Amino acid sequence: MVSVAIMGHGVVGSGVAEILLTHKQKLFSSLGEEIYIKKVLDLREFPDSPIADRFTKDFEEIINDLEIRVVVEVMGGLNPAYDFVKRCLKAGKSVVTSNKELVAAHGAELLAIAKEENVNFMFEASVGGGIPIIRPMNQCLVANNVREVAGILNGTTNFILTKMIEDGMPFDDALKLAQDLGFAERNPAADIEGHDACRKICILASLAYGKHVYPDSVHTEGITHITLNDVKFAKEFGYVIKLIGRVKKLEDGKIDILTAPMLVPFKSQLSNIDYEFNGIMVRGDCTGDVVFYGKGAGKLPTASAVVADVVDCCKHLKARRFLFWADGDGSNIISYKDSVSAMYLRLSGTDAEAKAAKVFGDTVAVRSNNEVAVLTTEMTYSAFEEKCGALKECGIEVLSAIRIGDM
Amino acid sequence: MVSVAIMGHGVVGSGVAEILLTHKQKLFSSLGEEIYIKKVLDLREFPDSPIADRFTKDFEEIINDLEIRVVVEVMGGLNPAYDFVKRCLKAGKSVVTSNKELVAAHGAELLAIAKEENVNFMFEASVGGGIPIIRPMNQCLVANNVREVAGILNGTTNFILTKMIEDGMPFDDALKLAQDLGFAERNPAADIEGHDACRKICILASLAYGKHVYPDSVHTEGITHITLNDVKFAKEFGYVIKLIGRVKKLEDGKIDILTAPMLVPFKSQLSNIDYEFNGIMVRGDCTGDVVFYGKGAGKLPTASAVVADVVDCCKHLKARRFLFWADGDGSNIISYKDSVSAMYLRLSGTDAEAKAAKVFGDTVAVRSNNEVAVLTTEMTYSAFEEKCGALKECGIEVLSAIRIGDM
Repeated sequence: MVSVAIMGHGVVGSGVAEILLTHKQKLFSSLGEEIYIKKVLDLREFPDSPIADRFTKDFEEIINDLEIRVVVEVMGGLNPAYDFVKRCLKAGKSVVTSNKELVAAHGAELLAIAKEENVNFMFEASVGGGIPIIRPMNQCLVANNVREVAGILNGTTNFILTKMIEDGMPFDDALKLAQDLGFAERNPAADIEGHDACRKICILASLAYGKHVYPDSVHTEGITHITLNDVKFAKEFGYVIKLIGRVKKLEDGKIDILTAPMLVPFKSQLSNIDYEFNGIMVRGDCTGDVVFYGKGAGKLPTASAVVADVVDCCKHLKARRFLFWADGDGSNIISYKDSVSAMYLRLSGTDAEAKAAKVFGDTVAVRSNNEVAVLTTEMTYSAFEEKCGALKECGIEVLSAIRIGDM
Repeated sequence: MVSVAIMGHGVVGSGVAEILLTHKQKLFSSLGEEIYIKKVLDLREFPDSPIADRFTKDFEEIINDLEIRVVVEVMGGLNPAYDFVKRCLKAGKSVVTSNKELVAAHGAELLAIAKEENVNFMFEASVGGGIPIIRPMNQCLVANNVREVAGILNGTTNFILTKMIEDGMPFDDALKLAQDLGFAERNPAADIEGHDACRKICILASLAYGKHVYPDSVHTEGITHITLNDVKFAKEFGYVIKLIGRVKKLEDGKIDILTAPMLVPFKSQLSNIDYEFNGIMVRGDCTGDVVFYGKGAGKLPTASAVVADVVDCCKHLKARRFLFWADGDGSNIISYKDSVSAMYLRLSGTDAEAKAAKVFGDTVAVRSNNEVAVLTTEMTYSAFEEKCGALKECGIEVLSAIRIGDM
């Protein structure tokens, strides 16, 4: 019997307890012993829970219990999760978390402590919810140089964009619908401004390239400025607009990472990933493109990924799994100003097509009413900004600018 | 340093050697020691190979070499692969194979020998080529009851069907093109008659449900009878035709498994998997649908999956990985006659719509020239055959009949 504790009994935490209880037999046959929930940490009361007698409000009861070998952290947020997780690892307990904020902010440090203490720190559920991605990527990585990872990593924004694309619903209405359906929080900033997707691509980039990438070193744009006109023009050009987290390895060994809405070509596998679903493309030098698709959030999908990690920890109580990256100082990341991309522009003003063609050279343009949409060839973002300045000087207003993805 | 041997230096085998040599540094940093190719078994000569001095024509040189801890079997076919693999396992060597025929025919026996000898038998590359599927599925499985696995598991037939769908190319021309491009063999029977896809769904079903499923207990239909008329009618109804390997768990605990062309709805993730690509959907009770996509064949994709297994074997020389299923006697498999599905029919004859509606009850029909396509509601295959008999008695010819997928 392996005793575990669960810190947090919210959506994911109650799902973890539920799966550990309802799938007991299945887990036993995989592990060869029972997983016993010894403690659940939450400040609230859950008198109706089948394990109501095991709830505690006191973290010390978990840290001081030598029988508890694996601790699940599903509280979310940085405090007190960071402190609790660090103390658990230092006390020789393996930790499983679904907390992407924690992993993106402190992953390298926590992995180093786990290594030192010869325990495991696992976080399959922190990216892609129920989609297996951390382990398969680690596996792909062994025999591949990963050229690029690009993903739809946030279900809330993907739901909103899909509603805009499929039903012509304006952004504000789609956001409200997402909130009503429980896909978006009352304060949706972390989702719609791209921070959640940014944390996830940071985790995948750290894993792929072996050095921690901190969210504040990644250029991040949300989807709040995307309009139905952009959606319509994109479709005319053969694209859909998706919020993409993307990291590429460049020839000089540096990485180009950002989170931003992008025009994704219809032929890309990522273009068909709709509503609250997530999809992640890993481009290896040997495998080519491999895509993982599924529910990126939700109680049971996320909890099942947590439980898979718990089982792995229980199987490896005395051995470390091979999941590690070093700390990073950002010196391996290029500025987003040097990142190269073709661009989509929406313009208004007299002779916008001709002026855009003059400034950008080779362009493709489409007009609808008094707006013009233009696709440019590839250029650095700083060159693009310069050319936008030149356009403005000719009296052309740049209504929106979106990168074109090549995934 | 871990010494390995590679049996077979064909497409996949030469790819394995290539990755082990070109990705040496990467593999070293993952494993912490060098993987050394000590022997390559092939009856042919490869004087230009950088490891030409390590070739042998004599299997005894491998089996008797105590330094060789891991053997890669990439010869294909059952003989002598089966005998060689069995002897390697019994000699205490771990074995990695890409040979789906071998795993589908002898997986349970070889897994049992590996268990007895405390070595590993791994076959990630046997299904889905470079797509990680065996390990992620094993992981998904831990915290999920898998309700269904459905996949496009054969790139050759998917290429042919895609050409029929996208370009209106007749079957024979599409097959010839696939052969010219190297996607199909000169003798394409194993692909186009569904046997290759059948072996792969047998492997996934064995893994998902813990009992070996042998290919000869699985009803298998190929794509040779699919016509451009079927493709066109399917499209009108909102479907594409794909060759699907599928296994479902029924409420009584038995499994419903078959390999057959199916009408896949546009909205399904599997409908967008085109050309030589593979896609596999795993439907768990907690995760919901998870889909894995990528190149299902080819030298480097397949070889990179083999190498990932080799690394895993090297990491676990003294410990067994948790991959196992018991032998099966077919008693957990229902007859395809009892399998329930909605059906697509293409008919000719006077008053075909009306007669089909009379025989099948609730139907949807479309007419084009002198043919009628009909979609039925769900029924067992034996009920369907009975009704087809009744239709024929009314003077209606059943030109084709294809199952409708619900993935």
